[in-house]
Amino acid sequence: MTIDELSKFYDAAESTYLERWQRLLRIPSVSADPAHAADCRACADAVRAQLDDMGFDTRCIETGSLPLVYAIRRGRPGAPTVLVYGHYDVQPADPVDAWSSPPFEPTLRDGRVYARGAQDNKGQLSYVLCALDALAAAGELTCTVKVLVEGEEESGSQGMNGSLDAWKPDAAADVLMAADTEMVDANTPTLTLSLRGVVHLTVTLRGARTDLHSGVHGGVAPNAADGMARLLAGLHDADGRVAVDGFYDGVAEPSETEAAAAEAAGFDPSDYESRTGVPPAGGEAGRFSPRVRAGLRPTLEINGVASGYSGAGMKTIIPATARAKLSARTVPGQAPDHVLACIVSHLERHVPEGLRLTVSEAGAAGGALSTPADSPAIQPAFAALRDIYGRAPVCLREGASIPVLSLLAEASGADPLLVGFGCPEDNIHAPNESFDVAQFRKGFLFTGLFFSELQHAGNA
Amino acid sequence: MTIDELSKFYDAAESTYLERWQRLLRIPSVSADPAHAADCRACADAVRAQLDDMGFDTRCIETGSLPLVYAIRRGRPGAPTVLVYGHYDVQPADPVDAWSSPPFEPTLRDGRVYARGAQDNKGQLSYVLCALDALAAAGELTCTVKVLVEGEEESGSQGMNGSLDAWKPDAAADVLMAADTEMVDANTPTLTLSLRGVVHLTVTLRGARTDLHSGVHGGVAPNAADGMARLLAGLHDADGRVAVDGFYDGVAEPSETEAAAAEAAGFDPSDYESRTGVPPAGGEAGRFSPRVRAGLRPTLEINGVASGYSGAGMKTIIPATARAKLSARTVPGQAPDHVLACIVSHLERHVPEGLRLTVSEAGAAGGALSTPADSPAIQPAFAALRDIYGRAPVCLREGASIPVLSLLAEASGADPLLVGFGCPEDNIHAPNESFDVAQFRKGFLFTGLFFSELQHAGNA
Repeated sequence: MTIDELSKFYDAAESTYLERWQRLLRIPSVSADPAHAADCRACADAVRAQLDDMGFDTRCIETGSLPLVYAIRRGRPGAPTVLVYGHYDVQPADPVDAWSSPPFEPTLRDGRVYARGAQDNKGQLSYVLCALDALAAAGELTCTVKVLVEGEEESGSQGMNGSLDAWKPDAAADVLMAADTEMVDANTPTLTLSLRGVVHLTVTLRGARTDLHSGVHGGVAPNAADGMARLLAGLHDADGRVAVDGFYDGVAEPSETEAAAAEAAGFDPSDYESRTGVPPAGGEAGRFSPRVRAGLRPTLEINGVASGYSGAGMKTIIPATARAKLSARTVPGQAPDHVLACIVSHLERHVPEGLRLTVSEAGAAGGALSTPADSPAIQPAFAALRDIYGRAPVCLREGASIPVLSLLAEASGADPLLVGFGCPEDNIHAPNESFDVAQFRKGFLFTGLFFSELQHAGNA
Repeated sequence: MTIDELSKFYDAAESTYLERWQRLLRIPSVSADPAHAADCRACADAVRAQLDDMGFDTRCIETGSLPLVYAIRRGRPGAPTVLVYGHYDVQPADPVDAWSSPPFEPTLRDGRVYARGAQDNKGQLSYVLCALDALAAAGELTCTVKVLVEGEEESGSQGMNGSLDAWKPDAAADVLMAADTEMVDANTPTLTLSLRGVVHLTVTLRGARTDLHSGVHGGVAPNAADGMARLLAGLHDADGRVAVDGFYDGVAEPSETEAAAAEAAGFDPSDYESRTGVPPAGGEAGRFSPRVRAGLRPTLEINGVASGYSGAGMKTIIPATARAKLSARTVPGQAPDHVLACIVSHLERHVPEGLRLTVSEAGAAGGALSTPADSPAIQPAFAALRDIYGRAPVCLREGASIPVLSLLAEASGADPLLVGFGCPEDNIHAPNESFDVAQFRKGFLFTGLFFSELQHAGNA
């Protein structure tokens, strides 16, 4: 379908689409709160019912926690398969008093729908489903489409992680479409090309059985706080490069094209400093720009340290123990388990004399994710965004992580396509979350155009 | 007086002496607890009354908190002046349930007196006063003796620190006698030749206004926990030597004699490890023995660190702030203010890029203290201990600090003489504190012999 055809279709059906969207918003499907478990299940049922109405074969997959909704609509033989991911759960609405209208009574004001989940993810999921419905009704949906909607994205995706065997056999696809990201701003079409992965661990150093008197034992007993400082300081070299052997295995130096693409979103150091309170002086500041460092380079960060006494006044002790929390952001090419093993091995080889090391809570929350430059999803996405905005999208290398998408990409074998129409002003996870109906419409158009382009390319 | 004369004198008067000691023990003079302020004043009165009875000119010096007891007994013109220091306050008795007999009802069992303060400091102060009384009664006290007894040693010596002008003019002396230390064990005569001083400070590093998302900002924003680790790790070189310019100014390398003397108290590394849980691998372990490191070398210790998140699970943040508490133990020759200035200057020159440093709670709690080898107190103390034990004392270089003694030594211009008859088994600061009457007797003999020797040397 062309953009004009899709626009007409949308304008004729808008009230229906908004009603479908708002039906989901009225269900307080807060996955973090066990008191809302029944609401979550009701929301799963509502999503499933919508997919039933759209002619999909649907089922619920029980997970031990909250169910997944799975649906499939088979297309022409040989046509590509698209796996659509979304989540029916939302963040808690607290503090409820801070909302201008009740969080689970969707309210239209100034062209925006206000409700918890208005954007994240009920709004973005809804425009995708409405567009698929429109394409199907017009006889223009020839791909095989699979839909997988989970109910615990906001609380750790335990269900999806724990029931891999139940859904993985039905997840194989060419493209993994996740409308769960944001645009740089409402005027800048944005394609998120990669996300970083996360590994994490807790490091404990133990010395004496108890804190010791720093007069009697100062200069004699090893100090766990000092040992931890030296251990942590040794994780980076003087240039901010991670000094852990093997950490960068598989990490390619950013190509000029990649670096240039990373800069396309722009970066103003003084704006950064005024927003955060710090200059962008962290990490490999001497070698790479901030956008490249956050998007294309792996990092190893200390998330917290605690040792001895840190209250008011003085307590002249030699701390017996010190604890640090570490996490690394990984990039495509790095194997999370290998990164974790390299960090642990480095720590073990650098334990300060007289102290004992324990590593706990070590794990990989998800690998890095990226859309290959030659993916069949790239060209249709560019074309669709150009149709809507009249220009090519900014390609983001995102420093953050969406662990469940790594799992899904790996399980499905699909190339991720991360295009969303959320905007910074949507206040997701905060009071007065909202989503602009104009953005909802653009998301609908994008989905319709993307599928049309993909199917056209597949037929060519 | 000879040891035989003193012994006879003691044996004849023992019941009187024990009663004077126990009279103080019955007063719950807990300085840390405002509810016991009247008890503390009653105890000051009791000490003063005892000195009145001994023929001293006495007065109470009000300080704004608890009073000092001051007393003087003038000796022959030209005779040396000895300033006796003690404290009439005690540690709290908690947990009271853990005592076998009530903490403020002195009880004699198996030759030991059990009570809070039995040793620290009412027992040790009492044998000094009783010996002075005996000497005076025998017409053998020819020194000028000044006595200064404070009531806040266990809670920071605020009164003495704050009323320097009120007592300093009357404190000038040749020898400062403080019976407030312990022996290595009950069979080993011990002379404490030095104590270390203490300076302390709190160091804060600030980065962003709030903790930042480690995905979005990882590799871009400076990490305060990482900056603190590097700042703290830089305080020592790889050999454990303090890497702060100027820190060792005025510190002499230990002479062979000093080092040999420090070893005289003995040190068993495996015993140390079984007692504390760590090997003695801290500080300048490659250059000096544990006894030398604790007694003759200054140290800089990290007493605590806190930054970011250190609880259970993961929190992927870049901490905005980090705080560390530091303290240094200084040795004779170091000026505490200079040491503090050097540490602050070092920190200021090494602030990691993008972070801001604040130093707070910086101060010197007291300088180091030592008895010079040519002090007029040395020979009499050696002779007195040899008379009692048949051998020369072990000379301790003590790593801990008694800040009020530094103040007193400086204000009085006197050489400190630190000989005490406390033993590790006395349980000071703990339930069931006690003091062996045999040790009380030895303290009496030592005091009598020391003054006799000092007066003899003065007359020679």
